[in-house]
Amino acid sequence: MAVYTDVSDEDLAAFLTHYDIGEAVAFKGIAEGVSNSNFLLETDAGRYILTLYEARVEDRDLPFFLSLMRHVAVNGIACPQPVDRRDGTPLGRLCGRPAVIVSYLEGMAVKRPTADHCAMLGEAMARLHLATQTFAPHRHNALGQPAWQPLFAPVEHQADMVSHGLADVIRDELSALAAAWPGDLPSGVVHADLFPDNVFFLKGRLSGLIDFYFACNDALAYDLAIAVNAWCFEADYSFNQTKGRALIAGYERVRPLEAAEVEALPVLCRGAALRFLLTRLVDWLNVPPGALVKPHDPIAYYRRLRVHRRLASAREYGVIR
Amino acid sequence: MAVYTDVSDEDLAAFLTHYDIGEAVAFKGIAEGVSNSNFLLETDAGRYILTLYEARVEDRDLPFFLSLMRHVAVNGIACPQPVDRRDGTPLGRLCGRPAVIVSYLEGMAVKRPTADHCAMLGEAMARLHLATQTFAPHRHNALGQPAWQPLFAPVEHQADMVSHGLADVIRDELSALAAAWPGDLPSGVVHADLFPDNVFFLKGRLSGLIDFYFACNDALAYDLAIAVNAWCFEADYSFNQTKGRALIAGYERVRPLEAAEVEALPVLCRGAALRFLLTRLVDWLNVPPGALVKPHDPIAYYRRLRVHRRLASAREYGVIR
Repeated sequence: MAVYTDVSDEDLAAFLTHYDIGEAVAFKGIAEGVSNSNFLLETDAGRYILTLYEARVEDRDLPFFLSLMRHVAVNGIACPQPVDRRDGTPLGRLCGRPAVIVSYLEGMAVKRPTADHCAMLGEAMARLHLATQTFAPHRHNALGQPAWQPLFAPVEHQADMVSHGLADVIRDELSALAAAWPGDLPSGVVHADLFPDNVFFLKGRLSGLIDFYFACNDALAYDLAIAVNAWCFEADYSFNQTKGRALIAGYERVRPLEAAEVEALPVLCRGAALRFLLTRLVDWLNVPPGALVKPHDPIAYYRRLRVHRRLASAREYGVIR
Repeated sequence: MAVYTDVSDEDLAAFLTHYDIGEAVAFKGIAEGVSNSNFLLETDAGRYILTLYEARVEDRDLPFFLSLMRHVAVNGIACPQPVDRRDGTPLGRLCGRPAVIVSYLEGMAVKRPTADHCAMLGEAMARLHLATQTFAPHRHNALGQPAWQPLFAPVEHQADMVSHGLADVIRDELSALAAAWPGDLPSGVVHADLFPDNVFFLKGRLSGLIDFYFACNDALAYDLAIAVNAWCFEADYSFNQTKGRALIAGYERVRPLEAAEVEALPVLCRGAALRFLLTRLVDWLNVPPGALVKPHDPIAYYRRLRVHRRLASAREYGVIR
């Protein structure tokens, strides 16, 4: 849930004078997105989402995200489309923050994805990866493998307060992954946050992807590894191989994995689990007083990481070769 | 802001089988309401609000609120209308809580009401009061004047921690208001929470009222006193008499106040300020650990109360006689 900034009707009316979409007829803060404030905006011209970028999103990255959303839509991946202002640019300011209006995407997220949902996600992700091959802008992955050690350092001494033995496991993983991390896989712009929250379905079909604000250049198969973590575990943290197979097979129907990607998959999955474990751990240990947003429990990714440490081959994740 | 309960797509789909409004095509938690969870629901049949009643709303009161919303709409006050289930009743259960689907009301709340907004609110409130004269069900005001002393007792020893001298002022007010509270004013069902959040405007006209979950039987002029507090103070807690006059004149265009109501207005305004001061004080001192909702600052109503203590006649509030 995320509505951080209170936008008054007057601020909104002034903001809308920069657009050609008429006046607001409804405006409601919605519980969507984690690094920005989102509002459902209805005007004479239709329905939109208004997004205010909070401090966690770097201003200089916004043009990258907005052009990416346009580029992938042109290439057949449904996602919210930035609405241009009268001056021909999509980015404005509202309540002291960068702000955009994007088109409204129908559909809704699933809480407990089935293997069918995983297969549809795999296909959409592969289409996204093919689409980004022709996208020129570049954004460094600030949360990629080289960032994990510096991310951990400031919270290392507190990790065992969250779970006894956690610090040792993370230290182990950091060195193991630093040694084993593949450096030369096919890469491109990945979504990097394709959790079930960010994938909409409508009447049993995938209707689009949202929240491109972690998108960056990295190994394409790393995106798949993130989704293995986010989509293929049950509530008791057991790995559902049927879902893994469906996800990977869906992906491969559009973009077959290369041998090096298949071989790297177990390491990428461990890395993806560690990345979310680390960022959640940092957030968990740094809840500001009075925060209205409850951080995600890091333990959910510690449990996944422990499963990955027991899985050695891509076959165990559901790759068929 | 209020989204307390997480509703999965599966829970929602099961809930919708009890209705004749098709399948969900969009579902978003919205930041509206304080004692319940609200979601924007779009189905094949149109747009709705789905409300889950959290612990603060008494189950036994729900039929009262739902019939009231129907009754006032029939009498010309636009407000969300409960949608009947296939069994002909509006009240269901979802995620272990009572739940209803209501129609979607266009329009949006104003953050800084002008005198024009106050006038429109006054008219709508008076129409609401006339409409409830023919509404038979009765609901006791659990937060009426007799409840204030028992509300204060458990937090009395902590009040000075919030503001030095606050406990003395509240004790003074409790006894002064107990002595001066009028017992025989025209009464009926009042909204009792007509804050700017709960009044929608569309293209410069009042488009409807929402959130009837404090509605109860009380003096009609007490509803007006609540609105004087909520609509006619500036950000620096100065009383804007122009807005007071507009609110009251708007009300009187539809339902002229009786002499006893005019005379009682200053006391009712002090009482309304005390009522919100007290409930906010209790909430402020009882924030549960991990709460996602920040309580309203009680000081805002302490400041209003201090203004009321200096205003002695209805004329000073803007009544013209």
